[in-house]
Amino acid sequence: MPIQIDTRQTVPWLEGETRHRDVVISSRIRFARNLVDYPFPGRCDEDELSHVRLDIEEAVTELIPSENYSLHLEEIDSVEKNVLFERRLATSELLNSSCSGLIYAPGESPGVMINEEDHLRLQMMAGGNRLEELHEKAGELVNKLSTKLRFAYDENWGYLTACPTNIGTGLRSSVLLHLPGLVLTKKVNKVLNAISNLGLTVRGFYGEGSSSQGFYFQLSNQVTLGRSDYDLCQTLVRVTEQIVEQERRSRRSLFAGSNSVREIEDKIGRSYGILKYCRRIPTEEALNLLSLCRLGVGRGIIPEGIDYLDLDGLLFLIQPGHLEYSLDENLKENERDYYRAERIQKELDKLG
Amino acid sequence: MPIQIDTRQTVPWLEGETRHRDVVISSRIRFARNLVDYPFPGRCDEDELSHVRLDIEEAVTELIPSENYSLHLEEIDSVEKNVLFERRLATSELLNSSCSGLIYAPGESPGVMINEEDHLRLQMMAGGNRLEELHEKAGELVNKLSTKLRFAYDENWGYLTACPTNIGTGLRSSVLLHLPGLVLTKKVNKVLNAISNLGLTVRGFYGEGSSSQGFYFQLSNQVTLGRSDYDLCQTLVRVTEQIVEQERRSRRSLFAGSNSVREIEDKIGRSYGILKYCRRIPTEEALNLLSLCRLGVGRGIIPEGIDYLDLDGLLFLIQPGHLEYSLDENLKENERDYYRAERIQKELDKLG
Repeated sequence: MPIQIDTRQTVPWLEGETRHRDVVISSRIRFARNLVDYPFPGRCDEDELSHVRLDIEEAVTELIPSENYSLHLEEIDSVEKNVLFERRLATSELLNSSCSGLIYAPGESPGVMINEEDHLRLQMMAGGNRLEELHEKAGELVNKLSTKLRFAYDENWGYLTACPTNIGTGLRSSVLLHLPGLVLTKKVNKVLNAISNLGLTVRGFYGEGSSSQGFYFQLSNQVTLGRSDYDLCQTLVRVTEQIVEQERRSRRSLFAGSNSVREIEDKIGRSYGILKYCRRIPTEEALNLLSLCRLGVGRGIIPEGIDYLDLDGLLFLIQPGHLEYSLDENLKENERDYYRAERIQKELDKLG
Repeated sequence: MPIQIDTRQTVPWLEGETRHRDVVISSRIRFARNLVDYPFPGRCDEDELSHVRLDIEEAVTELIPSENYSLHLEEIDSVEKNVLFERRLATSELLNSSCSGLIYAPGESPGVMINEEDHLRLQMMAGGNRLEELHEKAGELVNKLSTKLRFAYDENWGYLTACPTNIGTGLRSSVLLHLPGLVLTKKVNKVLNAISNLGLTVRGFYGEGSSSQGFYFQLSNQVTLGRSDYDLCQTLVRVTEQIVEQERRSRRSLFAGSNSVREIEDKIGRSYGILKYCRRIPTEEALNLLSLCRLGVGRGIIPEGIDYLDLDGLLFLIQPGHLEYSLDENLKENERDYYRAERIQKELDKLG
């Protein structure tokens, strides 16, 4: 079965609330669960893994309407795998595990990863700051699944997971933030250090193990043990709102100083000009320029038709796997750079 | 009397033949003459200088209709002087000499400089490759002037001039060339070295003493002695045509190589994008980016409405004196950079 993804369109779940959209790009909730009848995936043999996959697929199919897509990752080629990764449907661990599976709704959220680090990981994603809503919906789904599947649970520890960092609630909530104001006013380290004391952790654009690029930061809960999943989610919601305020304050001071405003407006204008007229562009440069443009939304520097959602959508479309998949051939790296410039301009031309 | 120049418009003489316009920006002819009744300007006292100026002004006024503008440079403020320099109406030597004068037609060509290095320097300028036409017209004018003024002339040496390099014909013919192809294919030094053997000399964008910027080169005759002025002009015409061919060949090879074409198209596109959307830009960067855009005319990289003439016109409008004069106040350097970006975009918006 093909992956059924239109890589010329951005992820369908990206639209969202607009109240915090200037700072919060997207929210994600995932629950990790394991089946009580099998060892954790890392200790299963092939036979056990395929039974796990079958059990979970059956349970999901019974509970959730049949228009979902269900994939066995060993049947997916490498370009398609890159697309699943870039759309955040699959982690690289899932893509490289034996007998792993992926089930996802046509809108690409919710999704269920099977035989990643844990037997089951259910995730939901949405644009903007929507953790509470996602938490509620994902919680309902995982509860429904627990009527069909017996999850490993201990009275003292809570839900059992392969890695101790997930034990307890099995919840990870995260938000992808855009923090150019805090970075450019050199306040970001202070703010992010304070956050780590609250049991939260900061990662780069591509999640675990990646460094922050283009002012993008991923913020998530680190502690899952000893607190209710509602509490964990609430902490992140509250901290996110505080960061939104601090980021907005930093931007105001950036755009208030008569020297800094001119400098930053020039940077934003040049970024847009290069994106609009370059003939080749590497992923990282595109990411950085889109990020600067994002800071210019609504400020009369870039065309009025361009909104946060448009720029956030482009973050997905410009990635290497997306470009290769759209062209249906293996592009060499420098050819991707040309095609990336074309894709960006096609999108910007529609808007500006 | 004000300088009567609209610095929001480019120099009126810039339009010209289009046959060589891809390579030849403009042509200039000047004749140097001295009055037989006075020492060379460097050896005149104030009284003699003002008599020279008066004599020449009277002769010009009698011969050429009265709508010409006639200035005494000591009455001109420094911003206006910069404008005269940037429009190539006056040399910096003229601007800094005592009792110097300038007479010019409303179209800014022909012009007569009085008490520069020589008593009289008559110049004509035009867009494109029009040396022959200019030579004929300027020759007629200088002949007419010789019926009113007695020029220092020696049977053996020809016309006498303050500097020996001008002795003989007093002619300097020059062309402003755009040679990105030869520069980028690294052939420019070979070509320009060959030229110096032909009694020609190469200078930068701003003439004598300036280095070449943004692929712009000024080519002129060095030798004025022992040859007829017709010959001198013909040599430059012939060499210019050869360079045009070599430059075109270099551009073809640049745009034929599958790697180099992509690289250069990307550079051109980015240059246009930055010019179009930056918020501040220094003169030199603007000059370099306009030069790269010039290489992109007619190649589908920059908007179709933009032609050589438009970009060449901008070369004048973006200069510091022009910007200060337009705003009628002394702009600080960084304020000029902001205003320069605005001016460029106003012009590009009209075209693209």
